[in-house]
Amino acid sequence: MRAVDVIRKKREGAALSSEEIDWMVAGIGGVVADYQWSALLMAILWRGMDDAETAALTDAMIRSGSVVDLSRTPGLKVDKHSTGGVGDKTSLILAPIVAATGVPVPMVSGRGLGHTGGTLDKLESIPGFRVDLDLDRYKAVLNECGLVLIGQTAEIAPADKVLYALRDATATVESIPLISASILSKKLAEGIDGLVLDVKTGDGAFMRRLDDSRALARAMVAIGRGLGKKIRALITRMDQPLGRAVGNAVEVAESVECLRGHGPADLMDLSIELAAEMVVMGGVAETLEEARERCWRTITDGSALAHFRKVVAAQGGDLHAIDDLSRLPQPHGSIEVDSRYAGYVHALAARPIGQATMLLGAGRDRVDSAIDPSVGVILHKKVGDRVEAGEPLCTVLVNDQPGIEVALAMIGEAYRIEQGPVAVEPLIVERL
Amino acid sequence: MRAVDVIRKKREGAALSSEEIDWMVAGIGGVVADYQWSALLMAILWRGMDDAETAALTDAMIRSGSVVDLSRTPGLKVDKHSTGGVGDKTSLILAPIVAATGVPVPMVSGRGLGHTGGTLDKLESIPGFRVDLDLDRYKAVLNECGLVLIGQTAEIAPADKVLYALRDATATVESIPLISASILSKKLAEGIDGLVLDVKTGDGAFMRRLDDSRALARAMVAIGRGLGKKIRALITRMDQPLGRAVGNAVEVAESVECLRGHGPADLMDLSIELAAEMVVMGGVAETLEEARERCWRTITDGSALAHFRKVVAAQGGDLHAIDDLSRLPQPHGSIEVDSRYAGYVHALAARPIGQATMLLGAGRDRVDSAIDPSVGVILHKKVGDRVEAGEPLCTVLVNDQPGIEVALAMIGEAYRIEQGPVAVEPLIVERL
Repeated sequence: MRAVDVIRKKREGAALSSEEIDWMVAGIGGVVADYQWSALLMAILWRGMDDAETAALTDAMIRSGSVVDLSRTPGLKVDKHSTGGVGDKTSLILAPIVAATGVPVPMVSGRGLGHTGGTLDKLESIPGFRVDLDLDRYKAVLNECGLVLIGQTAEIAPADKVLYALRDATATVESIPLISASILSKKLAEGIDGLVLDVKTGDGAFMRRLDDSRALARAMVAIGRGLGKKIRALITRMDQPLGRAVGNAVEVAESVECLRGHGPADLMDLSIELAAEMVVMGGVAETLEEARERCWRTITDGSALAHFRKVVAAQGGDLHAIDDLSRLPQPHGSIEVDSRYAGYVHALAARPIGQATMLLGAGRDRVDSAIDPSVGVILHKKVGDRVEAGEPLCTVLVNDQPGIEVALAMIGEAYRIEQGPVAVEPLIVERL
Repeated sequence: MRAVDVIRKKREGAALSSEEIDWMVAGIGGVVADYQWSALLMAILWRGMDDAETAALTDAMIRSGSVVDLSRTPGLKVDKHSTGGVGDKTSLILAPIVAATGVPVPMVSGRGLGHTGGTLDKLESIPGFRVDLDLDRYKAVLNECGLVLIGQTAEIAPADKVLYALRDATATVESIPLISASILSKKLAEGIDGLVLDVKTGDGAFMRRLDDSRALARAMVAIGRGLGKKIRALITRMDQPLGRAVGNAVEVAESVECLRGHGPADLMDLSIELAAEMVVMGGVAETLEEARERCWRTITDGSALAHFRKVVAAQGGDLHAIDDLSRLPQPHGSIEVDSRYAGYVHALAARPIGQATMLLGAGRDRVDSAIDPSVGVILHKKVGDRVEAGEPLCTVLVNDQPGIEVALAMIGEAYRIEQGPVAVEPLIVERL
């Protein structure tokens, strides 16, 4: 087999065989040069891949590393993946909820990039919390706590790391088959039995258009099922940030408030919906309705919070910071952004809020940038809320950081205040 | 500037600026990784490039190396480029013809690849002939002989060498803007004032379809003019081999016969047509008609042959082999292929003849393969010729080489003999 022939075949729009895909993935860093892979990536972005090709690519990427063996952990193991949004801390809330119902949650998360935050960065704002467990410790924490929250290890889908770096450098990120294979190869190599996908759509999502989000959700569900996994997708709106906190420590604090039963409605509702899907998938409830009830009960009886405290302790985190949220990293200052008009919030654009938070130091514009866990934004007003002139819209948490003025302007402009009241669109758009 | 942004722009179908193209070419082997260039090449193959972009790419590739300064050589310097065919030895015939009319011909040629032969390989079948002159010797031979016949030097368009190697490995060869820029950057860096293009079309050409050949010719003429050069293109038929000889030494012998005035009509006619275009471009004749007459006169008065002998001697070649063609490399054996039917030759497919000749050892399937100068085919019958059953169609010149049987079968099958007579299509299809 020759790489040039495989590239030509895809360039001409034909479907690649699973042997060809296997051979290309096995050749990464070896007989297939990086410049050949990048040409193939561009040809895939151009010509697409059908479900069978994408499943073969996912499978080959899984087999490029180890598949974690979780057979010693009883029960069906279920995880959730979000395509990324602003203020999206549902992982921190639903993982302990689902674990508290008895479904094991081995969760491998990512870091923030661009305008979206990452679960690992948020967790690391808890003093002492370690996300870089090795596989033995990963299994041990899962068995001990019913959940575990780590980052991708070197053993998992190493081909994805190489291909993602190439895609990032060659403008070939935005391809549904490549995105699907990248997400699913990492998730399925964790040793899970089922996966719930939260595919975001709207201005603050990577896929802004509903058609694209639907295509991505449809592709991932088809591929996951083709590989013999339980898989469901919810398409959810990401026009405004989820919940009221955007940042790192502030998002941990808001998650703990949710687990204490005091979270904002949109965030609680979405967390419970995703958790209920996972609980049904894990075989602990028959229907979504029953599952939702089980999930809410873990909040009211404190078992979800107890599971969260347990995993924080098991992964080295300081429980004092969970029990007294003022012990989480705090910024030096805060600035209120007040409304210039009276009226109703018609829009609160997630993308500029995410970008402004990044400017403040909460995110990273490069994979190796350091982040400031204490900065962020607390949104007092969200879409549909009544606001008076001079009333605070949000509080911006800052340290000494160049760019604060720009960030403040971006945050102010993210709000659109108009005269009449406005209906809030439902958060869940579709289920696949 | 970032390579990823330039790639994305082309991926999205936009035209690149000359600054972007300059920056990408200047970054070859430096800030722009090979895997980024190969992704851009695939995006260019997909999205195309307009004439302004292709001219900017050509210009940037020219400036990646030295442009030969031929200002010390008086007169307008003119070269010819063919897109490659089977039995196409017009360079060896027209270069001395044009030089003999007083127009200097600094000719930089290539080697054969695939089913087509290369001028350099043919010239090297003359014992002692050197094609690897340095630039000083190149200029000296041109001034002394009025023509010079060399291969591409390392100083000329080095960016093209890198990009061509990438294209070859990533299935991105077949792009009209990339082909145009590759051809023109090498040719225009020679220091020429004008260029005549022989764009082949038909079964034996790289571009089989007339539409593609026309698009390539049109693009190259537009780009050449945009860069301030005199440029003309002839689209010529490459369905059957040109002339009667296919190989290396046998093509030199046929070229010498042409210069002696005994060449086959199709080969002589095309050589004179291309030469006449060059002579008009060189300012030595006003009209094509006058130029044709001047060219024919160099054959009848022996001045073209004298120029050829002079350049062979200047480049180290053995004149005895030119004066006595039996001193050119000879094969150990020859095999006649006889016709099984009586009738007329309706087709003589150039591509299998080229491939069979390659199998015999006359061509190369890799850039670094060695070639056998003595083997080849002499075609006794061509399209339109009457043939009797048992009469020889051609003579195959062979050495001990595996694959002779396959080559013989391919050659036999390249002939299509039918009952009635057939008209021969004119060789020149269009002029641009």
